[in-house]
Amino acid sequence: MASNEIDLGVTCDMHVHVRDGAMCELVTPKIREGGVSVAYIMPNLQPPITTLDRVVEYKKTLEKLSPETTFLMSFYLSKDLTPELIHQAAACKAIQGVKCYPAGVTTNSSSGVDPNDFSSFYPIFQAMEQENIVLNLHGEKPSTLEDNVHVLNAEEKFLPALKKLHQDFPNLKIILEHATTEAAVNIIEEINKGITDPQDVKVAASLTAHHLYLTVDDWAGNPVNFCKPVAKLPNDKAALVKAATSGKPFFFFGSDSAPHPVENKSKYVGVSAGVYTQSFAISYLAEIFDSLGCLDKLRGFVSTWPLNFYGIDEKDLKCKKKVVIYKKSHLVPIAITDNKDIAVVPFMAEKRLNWSVKWSD
Amino acid sequence: MASNEIDLGVTCDMHVHVRDGAMCELVTPKIREGGVSVAYIMPNLQPPITTLDRVVEYKKTLEKLSPETTFLMSFYLSKDLTPELIHQAAACKAIQGVKCYPAGVTTNSSSGVDPNDFSSFYPIFQAMEQENIVLNLHGEKPSTLEDNVHVLNAEEKFLPALKKLHQDFPNLKIILEHATTEAAVNIIEEINKGITDPQDVKVAASLTAHHLYLTVDDWAGNPVNFCKPVAKLPNDKAALVKAATSGKPFFFFGSDSAPHPVENKSKYVGVSAGVYTQSFAISYLAEIFDSLGCLDKLRGFVSTWPLNFYGIDEKDLKCKKKVVIYKKSHLVPIAITDNKDIAVVPFMAEKRLNWSVKWSD
Repeated sequence: MASNEIDLGVTCDMHVHVRDGAMCELVTPKIREGGVSVAYIMPNLQPPITTLDRVVEYKKTLEKLSPETTFLMSFYLSKDLTPELIHQAAACKAIQGVKCYPAGVTTNSSSGVDPNDFSSFYPIFQAMEQENIVLNLHGEKPSTLEDNVHVLNAEEKFLPALKKLHQDFPNLKIILEHATTEAAVNIIEEINKGITDPQDVKVAASLTAHHLYLTVDDWAGNPVNFCKPVAKLPNDKAALVKAATSGKPFFFFGSDSAPHPVENKSKYVGVSAGVYTQSFAISYLAEIFDSLGCLDKLRGFVSTWPLNFYGIDEKDLKCKKKVVIYKKSHLVPIAITDNKDIAVVPFMAEKRLNWSVKWSD
Repeated sequence: MASNEIDLGVTCDMHVHVRDGAMCELVTPKIREGGVSVAYIMPNLQPPITTLDRVVEYKKTLEKLSPETTFLMSFYLSKDLTPELIHQAAACKAIQGVKCYPAGVTTNSSSGVDPNDFSSFYPIFQAMEQENIVLNLHGEKPSTLEDNVHVLNAEEKFLPALKKLHQDFPNLKIILEHATTEAAVNIIEEINKGITDPQDVKVAASLTAHHLYLTVDDWAGNPVNFCKPVAKLPNDKAALVKAATSGKPFFFFGSDSAPHPVENKSKYVGVSAGVYTQSFAISYLAEIFDSLGCLDKLRGFVSTWPLNFYGIDEKDLKCKKKVVIYKKSHLVPIAITDNKDIAVVPFMAEKRLNWSVKWSD
């Protein structure tokens, strides 16, 4: 390998929205173009995915669109799920996790749960714990003026619920998805205190690429950067960057790449929440890691630690090729489009990135 | 007067953007339609208003568009101003104030000043103090990651500069325009502690209508509600409502009504900052005051205290009619338009307001 190349191994993005229909056809192949081999797929379609038939069918659709990508699938936590269904889905390896959305906090989350009371789902969590199925938490309390919950403290207000879930199900694997705050980083550190063997990590946080770049100023007036959870304050961003580059096994990559047609981002009310990063996922990360002089920590963040946490075997991979990054700059286009109906504005459109990706045996 | 009518006297809006050209023609008459008699006009045209000729000409234009509205005019604080110009403008009553914009914080503020160092403007402030010309402060520090200044703490970070200006010019009349934070309310209270005669108030805050309604959640994803300073947190909104309805002479109305064509609010990047409230200014306020059972405090907020602070005589008024509000509901339209080139989405479009305005001798 050339001296300016870095082998990242089998790369993972453990939080991906690929939607359905024409949007799915457009963005699913971009996972691989962005340098990602293993993608954990979110179930928030309309209606959300809560049955074995639909998750199997969805996976087939995705595999047709991108045969070399390894898709990990998930259910949407709702009253439609049963412990029996969890056992059944685990037995045939149809899902690797269950995604929990608090009702109403983001795109297609109206079927979500009340994060003030998870107890009705405890039989589900117990089945998941037994089957080693991951619980993917969208960790935000819904905003209410009465309880002083707003988009900026919604994640921090959720953290006690995360802690309680871990206490009640100490062997359940839990990911605080797209963590955005210093408080979240601190609680993940606290929960993992004293753990020396990566195999023992039960609670992790996934971190997006865009939250390593953005603060509140970047989405104020720029709906393209508006997502849920919203990007927070400078100290939060600094804590996320530090966590991502720490080399610790409980922080790993989940892009939360969330494509929306440009017309849904260009509205004076009701802008869709989500930043699209899939097409250049690894390049965005390389840029940040490089700027801090810790490209050596990137492989852990995108490969070693996510594979470890989900317990992915090499035999489960659709393609065993490794991703190599090399220094070659490229311009992020103003839109990702199928040249028919859909255009999606990617993160950092028209900006230059310094690292490119290629695949190697 | 009927029992469901309330006489608000000669109403004032002490912070109004009417732009120029076709937009000016559209919105200037709306000041009166919204129930406002006296309007303090902002100078942030392109280029900003810094000469006697231009301010006189601008006032003439506005008076032609709305002959019954009393226009109070302002200069834009910049290096183009001189103490001589202040004296000259005061002598002919061409201006009532000078607006200070920190460079780069909002619409057309690129010619603004560095709020870390006002000292080069001290000769101007001295002339203003002598002439009883008001200093209108846009009280925000520009965002910088290095100094941890962002859109949410930019106002609070500015407050020490306000305090210092008051200490250095104790007789200069200063308004912290469109205050948005509990911290700002507190400092205005602190500065005015012990003052019993409204004539002695030197430092006041103007409060908008929309900041009595909005928090960060309302502009996250809704660019129509995006303005600078941005709406803050629930405790801040509560403090603003409390201040507005307090009946205290150092809190009064300045709408910061800031019209933008709908296409400039419907963009995925670079949304124009500003909420348009002019067409229904008094109705928005009546709604809030009514909901708190303190409509008796509304006259102070929109008439008594702003007229007192600016020292407006009855002889200076273009029209001496009083505004009366009465309970009759009306729907805020989806757009204010000239039916040619311009459509502006008003605040609370398609919502119902309970109070209407009329004029009485």
